[in-house]
Amino acid sequence: MRIAVDLLGGDGAPAVVVDGALRAFAADPDLRLLLVGPAEVADEFIAAIPAADRHRVSVRALWGAVGMADPPQRGGRFDTTVRGAALAVAEGAADALVSAGATGAIVTAAVLSLGRWPGIRRPALLATIPAIAGPVTLLDVGGSLEARPITLAGHALLGAAYASVVHDIARPRVGLLSIGTEPGKGDRARRSTDPMLADLKLCGDAHYVGLVEGYDVSSGERADVVVTDGFTGNVLLKGIEGAYAMAGGPPPGGAAPRAAALLGVCGTVVICHGGATGDDIASGLALAATLHRNHAIARIATALADLIEVTT
Amino acid sequence: MRIAVDLLGGDGAPAVVVDGALRAFAADPDLRLLLVGPAEVADEFIAAIPAADRHRVSVRALWGAVGMADPPQRGGRFDTTVRGAALAVAEGAADALVSAGATGAIVTAAVLSLGRWPGIRRPALLATIPAIAGPVTLLDVGGSLEARPITLAGHALLGAAYASVVHDIARPRVGLLSIGTEPGKGDRARRSTDPMLADLKLCGDAHYVGLVEGYDVSSGERADVVVTDGFTGNVLLKGIEGAYAMAGGPPPGGAAPRAAALLGVCGTVVICHGGATGDDIASGLALAATLHRNHAIARIATALADLIEVTT
Repeated sequence: MRIAVDLLGGDGAPAVVVDGALRAFAADPDLRLLLVGPAEVADEFIAAIPAADRHRVSVRALWGAVGMADPPQRGGRFDTTVRGAALAVAEGAADALVSAGATGAIVTAAVLSLGRWPGIRRPALLATIPAIAGPVTLLDVGGSLEARPITLAGHALLGAAYASVVHDIARPRVGLLSIGTEPGKGDRARRSTDPMLADLKLCGDAHYVGLVEGYDVSSGERADVVVTDGFTGNVLLKGIEGAYAMAGGPPPGGAAPRAAALLGVCGTVVICHGGATGDDIASGLALAATLHRNHAIARIATALADLIEVTT
Repeated sequence: MRIAVDLLGGDGAPAVVVDGALRAFAADPDLRLLLVGPAEVADEFIAAIPAADRHRVSVRALWGAVGMADPPQRGGRFDTTVRGAALAVAEGAADALVSAGATGAIVTAAVLSLGRWPGIRRPALLATIPAIAGPVTLLDVGGSLEARPITLAGHALLGAAYASVVHDIARPRVGLLSIGTEPGKGDRARRSTDPMLADLKLCGDAHYVGLVEGYDVSSGERADVVVTDGFTGNVLLKGIEGAYAMAGGPPPGGAAPRAAALLGVCGTVVICHGGATGDDIASGLALAATLHRNHAIARIATALADLIEVTT
């Protein structure tokens, strides 16, 4: 297993990325890394590990960075580290990509290099929130910003399959995030999407439970998968993070997620927070390793294979 | 000071409303109540208070309820308690209205009975979040669900004036909620609104500080007023509430707000959570009493009087 790491992604790059990669590398002796970024930064990493472990590291030297304020299209340029890391996955030189760069640029690089799953126009970013009643998958948290019903239906399919495969939930309950639980509550997009999800065939025994609210994401009592648009999901996720920080930390066993999986592209892609710490980067690498070891992306694609017509 | 209480608003009505009104009534000897609802429920309230205090209570007998799943238009019917309570404010029989009913119905009753402020097409619901760095005014949390730039600009005007008058902040910092702080981050509505707010004249020394994120609502470090659409704001507010509940309670000095002020109608209107407890209802009555005592609504209207042309 080899994971491509975007050395220039994130507010604290490259120092924080190197720090996180060193932590993950030390913690998992089976982990191999493909460092994508400036040769001098990769050299720093290599100098910091025992000589006996150096065979687990390879380097793809690239110097192009995508700033947080740059347009997402810049992630398509071949001289950028994020595109280089995505291409490494496409070529089979790596099994997964981890970046803490700007989400839009990572999505662009991933879509152009790996391609989308058939029937999924809008890849979604999934965050897992360790809620009281079990893990809650929240999507989209920023993969796209669209709130069209067809896009939300696609998210429901992806989220149900992810909860089933990754969290091993036998009958995932899928809810649509709104501002009340009674049918008809919400804006126009939610009012159109609610009946559409009620009729949608989800994978396996996943089923739609109707509208849910903001609290349900941290309690997990009403749904295992919470579907929303990337704008609302991103705001909500950061609001929960902020509330935990203000309350002096998350509850025992809980945490705000520090890395999210991009679903809907043909490969394993994990996106860390732009303000990621070294620990967060290490969490992202661990998530990518887990997804790869469990063949999660392939299993999700299989679970969805006969359902995708609904989103085309 | 007399506050009209909608006895039939909220999931736990009328019992919870009676409980909350009794608490507020006992806590504040200057508080007078106009109970709007079934005579038999009002009688229960009156039976529970000392005979010497009964002169502080009056009753408007009405039996029409608006359920949480009813269409908002039902709040316009004259036989409903929410419309009756709003009319009492319009007629001068009460100084403020408190209801835990469905937001849409309360907004309908308030707009029809009290009228809108000139230039404000979409009244906004404001919640105050006691953040680490001071109170943060979040709006809209569900008054309307529109995310049009002109509506968000109206929210910025209202929120800045509220923070200045109610929280006594000399130079309120106003932020626009988005999914990144760099200019250009966000969906189409935010990208259009950001430059519009940069050019908008706010009341007094209030000023626009640009894009903020979900964490900023609970930290309060970057803005005193956070502007968003009612859908996103409602989801975020409930997400913060849920996170506090999961973390074992809010931080010392902090809390999730249990009542919100409706701004943009000609009168003092406070909306409690549909799932309000007796304590929450009492908080709502206390907020209404504070707003009325400080002449907050009139002062906000004055502060906005020469700025309103921007939202017409």
